[in-house]
Amino acid sequence: MTTTRAGTRYEDRLSEAARGMRFSAIRRMSALIEKPGIISFAPGQPSPETFPVAEFQEIIADVVRRESAGAFQYILTRGFAPLIGAVQEYAAAKGMPSTPAEMLITEGSQQGLDLVARVLLDPGDVVLVERPSYIGATSAFRASRARMVGVALEEAGLDLDDLRRRHAECVSSGRPPKFLYVIPSFQNPSGISHAIGRRRGLLDVARDLDLLVVEDDPYGDLYFETEPVPTLRSMDPDRVLYLSSFSKILAPGLRTAFLIGPEEILAKVEIAKQSANLCGSGLDQRVILACLKRGLIEEQKKRIRPYYRAKRDAMLSALEAEMPAGVRWTRPGGGLFVWVTLPEGMDAEVVLEAAVAEGVAYVAGGPFHVDGGGANTMRLTFAKEDAPVIVEGVRRLGRVVRAAIP
Amino acid sequence: MTTTRAGTRYEDRLSEAARGMRFSAIRRMSALIEKPGIISFAPGQPSPETFPVAEFQEIIADVVRRESAGAFQYILTRGFAPLIGAVQEYAAAKGMPSTPAEMLITEGSQQGLDLVARVLLDPGDVVLVERPSYIGATSAFRASRARMVGVALEEAGLDLDDLRRRHAECVSSGRPPKFLYVIPSFQNPSGISHAIGRRRGLLDVARDLDLLVVEDDPYGDLYFETEPVPTLRSMDPDRVLYLSSFSKILAPGLRTAFLIGPEEILAKVEIAKQSANLCGSGLDQRVILACLKRGLIEEQKKRIRPYYRAKRDAMLSALEAEMPAGVRWTRPGGGLFVWVTLPEGMDAEVVLEAAVAEGVAYVAGGPFHVDGGGANTMRLTFAKEDAPVIVEGVRRLGRVVRAAIP
Repeated sequence: MTTTRAGTRYEDRLSEAARGMRFSAIRRMSALIEKPGIISFAPGQPSPETFPVAEFQEIIADVVRRESAGAFQYILTRGFAPLIGAVQEYAAAKGMPSTPAEMLITEGSQQGLDLVARVLLDPGDVVLVERPSYIGATSAFRASRARMVGVALEEAGLDLDDLRRRHAECVSSGRPPKFLYVIPSFQNPSGISHAIGRRRGLLDVARDLDLLVVEDDPYGDLYFETEPVPTLRSMDPDRVLYLSSFSKILAPGLRTAFLIGPEEILAKVEIAKQSANLCGSGLDQRVILACLKRGLIEEQKKRIRPYYRAKRDAMLSALEAEMPAGVRWTRPGGGLFVWVTLPEGMDAEVVLEAAVAEGVAYVAGGPFHVDGGGANTMRLTFAKEDAPVIVEGVRRLGRVVRAAIP
Repeated sequence: MTTTRAGTRYEDRLSEAARGMRFSAIRRMSALIEKPGIISFAPGQPSPETFPVAEFQEIIADVVRRESAGAFQYILTRGFAPLIGAVQEYAAAKGMPSTPAEMLITEGSQQGLDLVARVLLDPGDVVLVERPSYIGATSAFRASRARMVGVALEEAGLDLDDLRRRHAECVSSGRPPKFLYVIPSFQNPSGISHAIGRRRGLLDVARDLDLLVVEDDPYGDLYFETEPVPTLRSMDPDRVLYLSSFSKILAPGLRTAFLIGPEEILAKVEIAKQSANLCGSGLDQRVILACLKRGLIEEQKKRIRPYYRAKRDAMLSALEAEMPAGVRWTRPGGGLFVWVTLPEGMDAEVVLEAAVAEGVAYVAGGPFHVDGGGANTMRLTFAKEDAPVIVEGVRRLGRVVRAAIP
């Protein structure tokens, strides 16, 4: 049979990296959890209810009217020049001034992570990541055939003793880590934010060990109570490569994010980006620019904070009411996720099957741990469902967990 | 000084691939040729005059009205599902039927090339490419640290004896080529199309040598006279991975292209794409879908063929009138480019400086040759300037070339 012969042939032709590529655990889970009518705490997406559609409609019409054909031509690899300027101002207002050479627009933060991996990582290199960490990042690092080492994440932030310990292990095995990757604010998956003291401590350790820090900050502006603590980049610009995005504030479909970092690294990122996709969408970038210019981003932040806060509150009080003793969870001050830890020895993937049978879904936490473990953890998002549905979903989940506890 | 110390540090931290990354020769040239008022035969872009702006405006308003917030959410990594279906139909109409598993949407063909490189190429692998070949492709292959070997390109297509010879050299050096990369229709940079006999011959050789073919076809629909010859993919689907794009027909800013290929390879491309950028722009992909549905793509093809044909005619007759003996050029039946060969021993990069002083610019052809040579060649596009300006530009260029001929 031709197909079989071809299939065999194609397997033989794959690169080493491709042979190691597997669909992510989340993707495999999604076959199970994408059932119509299910209450879903699973997706890693902002709620479309927050997207400023009417404003988008007006802005797009205006962009096309003003710029006509120009809006549909190729743009520069680094991003539409006026947008770079506007994002520089935006970042400067958050304490992160930059030169144009230190700023680059990417088509979503995922692209930023991939490009950073490509210019910094060789096969076999080591990256330190939080434990748990964001799967999109670890999969980008893995695509560069790097090895990840997890550093314990506590309620207050990174365990700095563990950071020193893991770093020392890497050094003594002849592989000093290439960088430390962290999401210090309202992390995906855990919802944890590093306290200001921990941030200072992290940077002290990084300076001491001459460790580059890659700071991923998609959720920092999504705080619910107090003003957020400063970004690592604002505290030590020379040591930190910073990524952020408009996906959670405005809408993820307009693939626009940005990278602030050392000029030398960004020059390489630009070259890598040119061969990766030439440039982003001229239309998307112009829409984001117009949103920045008319103050829509700041307005949005004010709109969506109470929206997500109410949902978080619903989820936290429902967990309080429904979860049996021995179950712990985080109380995030922002972002989209709550992280639940079942009693040691329980398996959240097994519980997931029972949960789906009861009509509620989440993402099992194991795959967020780069070096195994975490089988008893789960990620819940409060982004998708309305408050009453969240309450009902947690009720079902509580039932399932109680039944599963040995 | 902190900056210097940091700079040094960053250099040390780069990956092997990044250390080898250089801004492309075209980019270095653009500093020279982007002068206001210059007549430019340089850019590798379609003319914005061809973009159907009024239709875009209407379509976008309609998409946002109908789909509301949904239009701004994440889409699937493989592409917006209804678009995949529509592009399957579109490709089937050109003799390239496919299953959904054999089709994948990319954010521009450049991304397709990059992803193909990532799933097929290991450092040191060899790729056979036309000589000259498209710089965007060779830079993507180089980013995977592959080595390129050029195969002579003649007016009628690939030199098949040279193909066998180069392939044999690679095999005997222990590196059988991973694939052959070709742009068989109206190639960038040469404007050359492979005749039907050469296409058959190419596929015969490929079968004989068990060589995978990567066919890049951004210009195939931009034919000016006769119906185009069939694509390689339509002639041997089992052997050919096919890329095409809506950039040249509609507008490149709506970063949307597609890949048709073996299911096994595309499954890996999908995983690589997920870590490369998660997904494309939901808005761009919906606009392209609407263009396909309302027949705008076919209309556009009919509109832009005479537009570019008139410009090509202007350029070819001007070359006839202005160029001195000993200068040769291609007579492309479509696409955007004419390829000029100066007498042996001349250097098109040196001539470029004189040309820019006279107010006319082009791209020197050397960098399109992966293994050196081609210093006496130049790429001219007729896409950007109007016919009378093309005539004036070629007049200036003729003057410069005549003065430079020894």
